[in-house]
Amino acid sequence: MQKLAIGIDIGGTSIKYGVLTEDGEVKLKESFPTKEFKEVDDFINYLSERIKHSLAGLKSDHKLVGVGIGAPNGNFYRGTIEHAPNLNWKGIVPLADLLSKKIKVPVYLTNDANAAAMGEMTYGGAKNMKNFIMITLGTGLGSGFVANGNLILGQDGFAGEFGHTTVFHDGRECGCGKKGCLETYVSATGIKRTVVKLLSKAKTDSILRDYSYNNITSEQIYKAAMNGDQLAIDAFDFTGKILGMKLADAITIISPEAIFLFGGLANAGKLIFEPTKKYMEEYNFPIYKNKVKLLSSLLPECEAAILGSASLVWSNEKKQH
Amino acid sequence: MQKLAIGIDIGGTSIKYGVLTEDGEVKLKESFPTKEFKEVDDFINYLSERIKHSLAGLKSDHKLVGVGIGAPNGNFYRGTIEHAPNLNWKGIVPLADLLSKKIKVPVYLTNDANAAAMGEMTYGGAKNMKNFIMITLGTGLGSGFVANGNLILGQDGFAGEFGHTTVFHDGRECGCGKKGCLETYVSATGIKRTVVKLLSKAKTDSILRDYSYNNITSEQIYKAAMNGDQLAIDAFDFTGKILGMKLADAITIISPEAIFLFGGLANAGKLIFEPTKKYMEEYNFPIYKNKVKLLSSLLPECEAAILGSASLVWSNEKKQH
Repeated sequence: MQKLAIGIDIGGTSIKYGVLTEDGEVKLKESFPTKEFKEVDDFINYLSERIKHSLAGLKSDHKLVGVGIGAPNGNFYRGTIEHAPNLNWKGIVPLADLLSKKIKVPVYLTNDANAAAMGEMTYGGAKNMKNFIMITLGTGLGSGFVANGNLILGQDGFAGEFGHTTVFHDGRECGCGKKGCLETYVSATGIKRTVVKLLSKAKTDSILRDYSYNNITSEQIYKAAMNGDQLAIDAFDFTGKILGMKLADAITIISPEAIFLFGGLANAGKLIFEPTKKYMEEYNFPIYKNKVKLLSSLLPECEAAILGSASLVWSNEKKQH
Repeated sequence: MQKLAIGIDIGGTSIKYGVLTEDGEVKLKESFPTKEFKEVDDFINYLSERIKHSLAGLKSDHKLVGVGIGAPNGNFYRGTIEHAPNLNWKGIVPLADLLSKKIKVPVYLTNDANAAAMGEMTYGGAKNMKNFIMITLGTGLGSGFVANGNLILGQDGFAGEFGHTTVFHDGRECGCGKKGCLETYVSATGIKRTVVKLLSKAKTDSILRDYSYNNITSEQIYKAAMNGDQLAIDAFDFTGKILGMKLADAITIISPEAIFLFGGLANAGKLIFEPTKKYMEEYNFPIYKNKVKLLSSLLPECEAAILGSASLVWSNEKKQH
């Protein structure tokens, strides 16, 4: 009988859902829009029906071991999503309990970047690592820290909000209400803000001078940089500088074997890795210099979120046995 | 038969040495100057003789379980002191192995701030805590981070160098070769540098204008502040501001239950705790606000180092049983 886990990634726009084996083979994968579900009960009803259908449709003999969920503002200890700004479901939502009652298997929930870190450890480049940092670069900057082989969840289950460390004390306004947070510089939105700042500051010619703020995307900045647009290249350099400096800070706490970059900006390859590495080493405390690897995530991007969520199931199953 | 551990604290000036019970009762305590021992072999010979004498002098029936050592640049994994700038013994010194061969019990070694964190967890205010940060304020700033109930040692055994995170990117020159490190602002030396900077910048009258740079001590700054000297009070406020801001950064990684301050500057009480707490909350990511306790270490200062070192023995003995 084959053991299976379900990995679910809840984002502001879509919910991704997959049925996986312990080896990370994806038996089935789908996604549906998040906003369809005004009430969390509607979502739970829909999801539990869909799980039943999916499993019924599998030909092999199997057993569902559990469900793992990655969600914004997810709390592992309580299995809750708490005050997530981009979801319809307000307040504190006990999602893991609600789903577990319906489908009668354990349900684990954590924030999306922590799930990605677990995925990297189970299926990706951190398979044999006990100490590493996962940085997810999307609209914002998420992070997961692993020390002594365990994800750091902290006292209240909300550890790993490195995107909200302060870079400049009177810096850019952040969605969290603070100023100068790391993610206002290092993220898809961050590099766009940097481009627009450089447009005002520098006189460098750039194709990006023809786009409005709302129309600039990180993909365009990447293409421009690949075509030799100096202003776009400068924006990547600045982004890597800020990230490298702050990673040097994080290294003093964790002393990791490696740091993994994942997601949109990380796909820019050398454009982001080279300046990040350069400034990370420049700001590293001497005993850490040239010891910490800066790596691309080995998770396939389109399946990373469900792999990460599903790995919550396997790691917790192991702890119980 | 009573189990005993020996705790040793190796500093640049003196070596403190104590024989302790598991409850933290100090049966015997002494100290001797570090510089006496030009070669590490001399030190090992002297120390092992002294241990034999100490134990022979005890009246009760006892068993020595092990020795714990806290030392600058101490590496737990290797039991080594590596390139410590303030010691006679240069290069990589395998102190734990050398001593263990002589006295035939396990010898554990880590850096002094990590030992202090272990001490706080075993004998101090962190007895029931799984997630906390220890900050030791002396000539420099040391730190120990505990997550999921374990000290974070990192990939190479050198985790917890929070004193060398960067505050200002072109800031004060640090002994480590970098610029703008936290300990150049927050430490006994740091507050003195702040006072001297304020003397040049402000026109505020101050008793400290009568002292040379070399003659100003953190004790004098404390006394001046207690007597209402505004410049000294401003120096404490600035020191607390920098510490509070950087603690808010560290909280995003660890999400601790509490942060403990230990050592010279921490003894200034409200003068340092109030601004640190104020700015820590101001820069905290909203979900952490007013949740993290800022506390004084409960370790008695004169015995903290040997308590911390000895606690390495008890915690490792537990792991083996």
